[in-house]
Amino acid sequence: MVVGVYGLGRFGSFWASLLAQHFTVKGFTRSGGRSVPHGVSWASEEEVLSCDALFLAVSISSMEQVVGRIASQISERTVVFDTCSVKLYPISVMKRILPKEVRIIGTHPMFGPDSGRNGVSGLPIVYCPVRVDEATASEWRSRFLNMGLRVSDLSPEEHDREVAYTQGVTHFVGRVLNDLGLKPSAISTVGYAKLLEIIEQTCNDPWQLFLDLQRYNPYTAQMRVALYTSLTKIKDRLESSLEDERGNGDPR
Amino acid sequence: MVVGVYGLGRFGSFWASLLAQHFTVKGFTRSGGRSVPHGVSWASEEEVLSCDALFLAVSISSMEQVVGRIASQISERTVVFDTCSVKLYPISVMKRILPKEVRIIGTHPMFGPDSGRNGVSGLPIVYCPVRVDEATASEWRSRFLNMGLRVSDLSPEEHDREVAYTQGVTHFVGRVLNDLGLKPSAISTVGYAKLLEIIEQTCNDPWQLFLDLQRYNPYTAQMRVALYTSLTKIKDRLESSLEDERGNGDPR
Repeated sequence: MVVGVYGLGRFGSFWASLLAQHFTVKGFTRSGGRSVPHGVSWASEEEVLSCDALFLAVSISSMEQVVGRIASQISERTVVFDTCSVKLYPISVMKRILPKEVRIIGTHPMFGPDSGRNGVSGLPIVYCPVRVDEATASEWRSRFLNMGLRVSDLSPEEHDREVAYTQGVTHFVGRVLNDLGLKPSAISTVGYAKLLEIIEQTCNDPWQLFLDLQRYNPYTAQMRVALYTSLTKIKDRLESSLEDERGNGDPR
Repeated sequence: MVVGVYGLGRFGSFWASLLAQHFTVKGFTRSGGRSVPHGVSWASEEEVLSCDALFLAVSISSMEQVVGRIASQISERTVVFDTCSVKLYPISVMKRILPKEVRIIGTHPMFGPDSGRNGVSGLPIVYCPVRVDEATASEWRSRFLNMGLRVSDLSPEEHDREVAYTQGVTHFVGRVLNDLGLKPSAISTVGYAKLLEIIEQTCNDPWQLFLDLQRYNPYTAQMRVALYTSLTKIKDRLESSLEDERGNGDPR
């Protein structure tokens, strides 16, 4: 079993070195440059496109371009996986552009180099066997289970609806807290310590990922309206309560 | 050593049962009613006001009224502690209203029934010996250390400046997330799990505490301006990036 990883950015490098604990892994990156992840060997684009399995670890917004670029070269026996944080969009791109014979499995490993720093055992991976025979789908489910992952079968719709709130809100809050410049405190409450961890869990990722999570998930528009409504509601309720109390003769 | 606790609300009950692991504790509440905390015995107002130490565990906004009510009855040998989440205001109230002979120590246990559910060992308590002899201040510092607490000596100003951001921002974020109605998810990321814990750490407390934290801390006005600025900045940056991309011919 030789596995290719296409794209060795922050997530791709992490994912490749994780796969390398279980398989022979070849890595390719369009930009070149970076150091090769632990346990992974460099390969040409041609080489990774003829592996038994190919994991695309490219940004959501470059999926259409990358899938277009590899479609004519990919070997028929290669199973193609995406690893995007949204599912409807990249799956529709792969189904539309990849040759009919090429098998497709959508995945979303719900972790990255920050949350998986101390191991990924028990962490979830969303699993969408899109265009693939039962046997292959079942083999790969077992392989992910063997890696210690919790495999969660969700439809692309169910996935996107759920992460719009879970990841979408978390990243928004993390960005705001980071912009505020919050610092560790010697008299930190338990709640504040959690708040600081959210910054760490979200702000090491590129802004482009934050944007793509919003842009390519059809359910985030609705989430953002709800979030802005709650923010305005709490702000207005707080400020008007403070105003009322001031009006009642309190000197502050 | 007989310790009185004045006020047996959510925090007062928790604090009284914690003290009862180390001292004889008598509890009094103006409203009556509730069940007596574990290890604590009911007492009349007169009885708690003649204990060796008296912890006021009343809302910040009722401090002036309560201190006024007890000032003429408190015994001269009683050391009076407040436990408020702000320090400048309650300390100025106690110094102004309590008889000159009565010793005063300000405290802020940086935990409550939620964050201290599994024990308080290693959690911080802010300690402000305001008007008290060196020997008594030192004895009480030792007693808190014996309870397993991390005693943090801060001036009331330093305390209020720091918690404006730590507690203030945490409670604001918790209220917004709670209003959004976020739910646990089977495919939760580590970051999202932290987000849900923030709700639990802040929203079991009464709204009045949230208001009082803002109202009676002179540094929160500045924090709220900074928070609203960051919120607006991230929202605008996000929405205008999404708008730009749509303008560039993206169909979404």
